[in-house]
Amino acid sequence: MADLIEPRILKGFRDFLPAAEIGRRSLVEKIEASFRLYGFVPIDTPALEYADILLGKGGGETERQIYRFTDNGGRDVALRFDLTVPFARFLAEHRADLALPFKCYHIAKVWRGENTQRGRYREFTQCDFDCVGSDSAAADFEILLMMRNTLSAIGVKDITIRINHRGLFNRFLDRIGCRGKSAEILRAVDKLAKAGRDATRAALAETAGAENAAKVLAYTGAGGGFGETLAGLTEAAGGPCPESERLSLIRRFMEDTGTASSFVLDPSIARGLDYYTGVVYETFINELPEIGSVCSGGRYDNLVGLYSKEKLSGVGASIGLDRLIAALEALGKSRPRGAYARAAIACTDEGACGAYQALAEKFRERGAACEVFTEAKKLTWQFALAEKKGAEFVIIPGEAPAAGKLALREISGRQDRENLDFEEVLDIITQGAREDTV
Amino acid sequence: MADLIEPRILKGFRDFLPAAEIGRRSLVEKIEASFRLYGFVPIDTPALEYADILLGKGGGETERQIYRFTDNGGRDVALRFDLTVPFARFLAEHRADLALPFKCYHIAKVWRGENTQRGRYREFTQCDFDCVGSDSAAADFEILLMMRNTLSAIGVKDITIRINHRGLFNRFLDRIGCRGKSAEILRAVDKLAKAGRDATRAALAETAGAENAAKVLAYTGAGGGFGETLAGLTEAAGGPCPESERLSLIRRFMEDTGTASSFVLDPSIARGLDYYTGVVYETFINELPEIGSVCSGGRYDNLVGLYSKEKLSGVGASIGLDRLIAALEALGKSRPRGAYARAAIACTDEGACGAYQALAEKFRERGAACEVFTEAKKLTWQFALAEKKGAEFVIIPGEAPAAGKLALREISGRQDRENLDFEEVLDIITQGAREDTV
Repeated sequence: MADLIEPRILKGFRDFLPAAEIGRRSLVEKIEASFRLYGFVPIDTPALEYADILLGKGGGETERQIYRFTDNGGRDVALRFDLTVPFARFLAEHRADLALPFKCYHIAKVWRGENTQRGRYREFTQCDFDCVGSDSAAADFEILLMMRNTLSAIGVKDITIRINHRGLFNRFLDRIGCRGKSAEILRAVDKLAKAGRDATRAALAETAGAENAAKVLAYTGAGGGFGETLAGLTEAAGGPCPESERLSLIRRFMEDTGTASSFVLDPSIARGLDYYTGVVYETFINELPEIGSVCSGGRYDNLVGLYSKEKLSGVGASIGLDRLIAALEALGKSRPRGAYARAAIACTDEGACGAYQALAEKFRERGAACEVFTEAKKLTWQFALAEKKGAEFVIIPGEAPAAGKLALREISGRQDRENLDFEEVLDIITQGAREDTV
Repeated sequence: MADLIEPRILKGFRDFLPAAEIGRRSLVEKIEASFRLYGFVPIDTPALEYADILLGKGGGETERQIYRFTDNGGRDVALRFDLTVPFARFLAEHRADLALPFKCYHIAKVWRGENTQRGRYREFTQCDFDCVGSDSAAADFEILLMMRNTLSAIGVKDITIRINHRGLFNRFLDRIGCRGKSAEILRAVDKLAKAGRDATRAALAETAGAENAAKVLAYTGAGGGFGETLAGLTEAAGGPCPESERLSLIRRFMEDTGTASSFVLDPSIARGLDYYTGVVYETFINELPEIGSVCSGGRYDNLVGLYSKEKLSGVGASIGLDRLIAALEALGKSRPRGAYARAAIACTDEGACGAYQALAEKFRERGAACEVFTEAKKLTWQFALAEKKGAEFVIIPGEAPAAGKLALREISGRQDRENLDFEEVLDIITQGAREDTV
């Protein structure tokens, strides 16, 4: 016998067994159904791209984390580490074929060689949605509304979406003479929640001096209701301006749709990523603020600038599927089931499996998933198998499976019923189907 | 301005624009729905694995085509080139957590650095489904039935599934003294359709001598009905045996389910892959035999042998999504649409976009996808945009969008209706939704 190879997977990568995969698919299906209701359409791009496309101007952390290699044709290639950069390349390449504003979503896996000790995975799924080619506040708001309603559709209703406007913040920085240090200041502010106020003050002081550090912390610490906060920020930024008017309009759209209670204007929301230029936002689950944002995004003025002279502005957000699943588990809202089929047909004669399949087809044609067992073992063994697989009923056919009377075992109650018609069985096995997630 | 990076993708890789991606998703959704009706459950595995796991005993062609590299942690890794090898590793690793027979499906992308000149892609999608842990003919038949009915569910009804049994063929080879050359002979027979009879005869003669080459060609050329062919092959293999009995039983199951006309017993079906040990099959579209098999598979006695001492036999098949899509296009059965939303709400006042969204939510709550336009341009521009996006209707709200009367433009007929209630509009935009594929 040849030496065995030990079956194992790479650190940070995962297999998904049926219960986990059914849960993931159910979530993705609900997220997609929500996106589609808003008229968003799907796209897809390759997992592998030229490394220079993905790395662009380069970036320290990205370069260290990316899976990059030379392919058999000598090309310098890499696995995508997010969906934003491939989307920018996609837009630049297919601009002529797209009707603007272009509203699309992209749900796919990405790969990063991250430190797995922080509970991070090296292969994970992102759900991005974007509206490109419109600079309107209405487009900003539509993404915000979709964030709220998509999470609601998967049962996560008690959330707070925290919004800020980078342009307004930059006006404020301009006034205190720190506009040139915007990127460093934003990065320091982005770490505020994790690093704490003192460490952030120190980092800001090093960049902008102690006095300005105090002003930045005062700006980012402004609290109160949306209107009150907006008035304060507007004043700090030098009075009414297009950015404050946009926030005002977005606020009115929230009221018009009865969704205002889900949103907070929070000047400490910075987002670490450089390409955002307008509104930015993060989403927190009120019962689980500590897991961080489950859906984030913002407006970018010129996402395709690396690849094209044409300016294309847009606004989008991304749901981190793995973090969301962890949140649903923590909230007890994940009820994994192991099966789609609620019923299985027992096998009492292997030679009758054609007739069992003919009976099963009658159920399937009516939309009821139905497994056929193929081993003529003891019924108790078959009941146990059905239970292990997550089925709720075992149908026991008689002499003429597709035509005659049927018996039915209800697994959880260990209850047997006999002499049932096909229609009676169909009614029972399709009634009260349970949801796998709330 | 910085130098631009030319937006481009790798040879053999593809972007999917909305119309193409909607078509792909629609197919995958129908395929999945069919698998689920049979009680099959989904799994997933990593895109990247240890190279020794994927390459196993190694194999010339695979080794040349695989995307293999050393990751940042110094590991020898590779992108999966099919779903079968990761599935074998998955089974060996998770055997204790799986209830047998285990019926599952796996729909995912795989990567091969193939020669793209033959119209092949380097990134493509496979749809595998398998039943593991049962040696029964009923399990063989279930996979065959699923192949037939899943293709039927996506509109491909006029097919022929060609079946053979490797074990029966090996009995015949034993009788003519060629059992030891089984693998080479199978490979030569597998190329029969492409290479032609003369080239195959020459290849076989080189391996097994001219006399045996003639016998093999006679065996693989046997024609006629299922029963007649089976009788001839059984005789050539030395009389009734478990393999001929299994084929007989499978034949009876076909009759019991009224599906016999979709299947042909064809002794020239060999399948090039070494791991098949029992029944093997390929599926041809009757109108398009030249594109080759769109769904193939077979029974394997010991798929996990590389990773585990435990024997696990199974039977499965794989649908090649890209070839299937090419076939649907060739048959004129692919009618791509660019949108899920059949209706868009026109924008006549950007400040009213909150009210438009509130109106749109009323449609969405009733299951009707509805886009909201966010630019207050001329209505003719908005009608043209709706048409480009694939929408069929534009809803024109009045002064009180969510409460008042609505006007409706039907795009294709350039027909306008006014003074409609919400319910009237809902009826119109949800009636007679068209299918994207037959």
